[in-house]
Amino acid sequence: MDLHILDHRLRVTSISKSGLEQYTHPLIKLIFLRNRTRSEGLLTQTQHYLIRCKFFSLTETPENYTVVLDEEGFKELQPSEHLQVEGSTWLPLNVVSNGNASSSSQAVGVTKIAKSVIAPLAEQHVSVFMLSTYQTDFILVREKDLAVVVETLAEEFNVFREEGGESVPVHSQDACNGLQRNGREVPHATVHPVLIPENHFCVMSLDPDTLPAIATTLIDVLFYSNRSKEDASVDQDMECIVFFSFSLIDGYISLVMDTEAQRQFPTDLLFTSSSGELWRMVRIGGQPLGFDECGIVAQISQPLADSDISAYYISTFSFDHALVPEEDLASVTEMLQTQRMSS
Amino acid sequence: MDLHILDHRLRVTSISKSGLEQYTHPLIKLIFLRNRTRSEGLLTQTQHYLIRCKFFSLTETPENYTVVLDEEGFKELQPSEHLQVEGSTWLPLNVVSNGNASSSSQAVGVTKIAKSVIAPLAEQHVSVFMLSTYQTDFILVREKDLAVVVETLAEEFNVFREEGGESVPVHSQDACNGLQRNGREVPHATVHPVLIPENHFCVMSLDPDTLPAIATTLIDVLFYSNRSKEDASVDQDMECIVFFSFSLIDGYISLVMDTEAQRQFPTDLLFTSSSGELWRMVRIGGQPLGFDECGIVAQISQPLADSDISAYYISTFSFDHALVPEEDLASVTEMLQTQRMSS
Repeated sequence: MDLHILDHRLRVTSISKSGLEQYTHPLIKLIFLRNRTRSEGLLTQTQHYLIRCKFFSLTETPENYTVVLDEEGFKELQPSEHLQVEGSTWLPLNVVSNGNASSSSQAVGVTKIAKSVIAPLAEQHVSVFMLSTYQTDFILVREKDLAVVVETLAEEFNVFREEGGESVPVHSQDACNGLQRNGREVPHATVHPVLIPENHFCVMSLDPDTLPAIATTLIDVLFYSNRSKEDASVDQDMECIVFFSFSLIDGYISLVMDTEAQRQFPTDLLFTSSSGELWRMVRIGGQPLGFDECGIVAQISQPLADSDISAYYISTFSFDHALVPEEDLASVTEMLQTQRMSS
Repeated sequence: MDLHILDHRLRVTSISKSGLEQYTHPLIKLIFLRNRTRSEGLLTQTQHYLIRCKFFSLTETPENYTVVLDEEGFKELQPSEHLQVEGSTWLPLNVVSNGNASSSSQAVGVTKIAKSVIAPLAEQHVSVFMLSTYQTDFILVREKDLAVVVETLAEEFNVFREEGGESVPVHSQDACNGLQRNGREVPHATVHPVLIPENHFCVMSLDPDTLPAIATTLIDVLFYSNRSKEDASVDQDMECIVFFSFSLIDGYISLVMDTEAQRQFPTDLLFTSSSGELWRMVRIGGQPLGFDECGIVAQISQPLADSDISAYYISTFSFDHALVPEEDLASVTEMLQTQRMSS
């Protein structure tokens, strides 16, 4: 198996609910106007521009909007009281199974990489920020942890660093050896409370060329949903949760939305896997999780891997979110219950 | 001929070039998300909303963005240092030729109403703010001038006031009689300098149902054109002017753009009159005109009417703009020259 360190330097940010309005201009630019050049005018000297942001992800949760984007995109976000920025630069890792997958597992998503990536990194006390999409699963790690990450994962993977379109093999550095390379004791993992909202989610994609056709609907859902924390987020009964995720990464679009949001989109443009599965959410964390605790993803992905249950996993600024197949929810719930009892 | 006082109470506002970004959220809502109701959700209590704004016009000029909209729409614009609001409430008038047009003129636009509406109002010292669209010509007058307007125009027109979908006949009030009802001397009209930029303009329309199909292009042109006053507006040689107008009034869309902007739109969705005429602009005013001077529209529309030359006329916060057929530009220029010499 190959592990690629992608050629994006990412920032993890959060826009407050009340601040979204003032970030509408840059966000619409990042979503809809990328890679466009203006026609060369004969008469007027119109300013030419090109959005170079190649990694963009926006996830609405009841608490805020988590925006993960590369440094080119980050330049578009003006600082303000409504913008929180995690201090580190993050690098996305991506596992490429090159045909000779060792496991016979049919599971998709984070489950596939639970034992090979997630667990070893948790053991080495490396924080990860996960971003599953329709196409793949990105494992974001802090740039400063890269040496530890490479050494940890080089045991299982051929590690490549993508640089200007080339994949360059990376070897773990001599300077860095022995276990506990982060120099920290791995603490006993906290078992976080989970919430299981009632919504059913779809994980979908879209041909980037047809993005303009859903522009007004997507703008409506993202910027005008009026779903403030007070009235409709995690409501009194914890019935449903506000959750919508859009990403446009290296030209691939991924959307995660509940079936109610899905009804607003034209049925013929968005597509999902042939199984057309619906997913249920397990939100991890009673209090905002922060970025420093390790092993959160491992805690849930390990038992899922043991049971070969597929799962998408989306970290946000405040909480983590796993999506599991509807039909597996009962066993997942039971599994989490057991874990909680034994901790 | 009938004159209708339409059922809209309008505000005339201006957004500064640098303030557009912060008004992107409400403007996109007003342009694209009107008359939409969210699907009733079974699971979540999503807030329902309906944009009731029925009169909306946005015109970009080198100086600013002029936004004319009804009170429902005006509520969406938060006050700020970037928003200027003219103090009055304006009412739109509309001439409906009910089949028995007295003139044999083939001219369209403001020319048709120059002698019957514009000249008499100028004589009565009533300020007008003109807004020609693909479909018709709106004559905006201040609500406080309405009695004078009705009495002045009742000589030539059957005047109706539209109220809740009904057309109610209006009779000029007894209280208000005699000429000079505004109690002011009509001053000798100032002849304003004019500019004639090189752009060629089209006046177009669009089926409102296909508005979503041009959403990303329209958003790009309106909000991301990067045509700041410094680099590309009225450039050194006065060659071309930044001018783009979009209106959505009672469900009808009108667009005025130059041929360069037009090239960015799909050719099959926007339509223009069968003659496919191109128009040249005469911008009126060397210094911002303000809202109190009368007779500005009359000054240019009278000679056009004498020569039976069609003209669209778009007032903005700072200047007035007449659009005349390309082939008539020479005679219009000569006409304005003569007027200037004789003043």
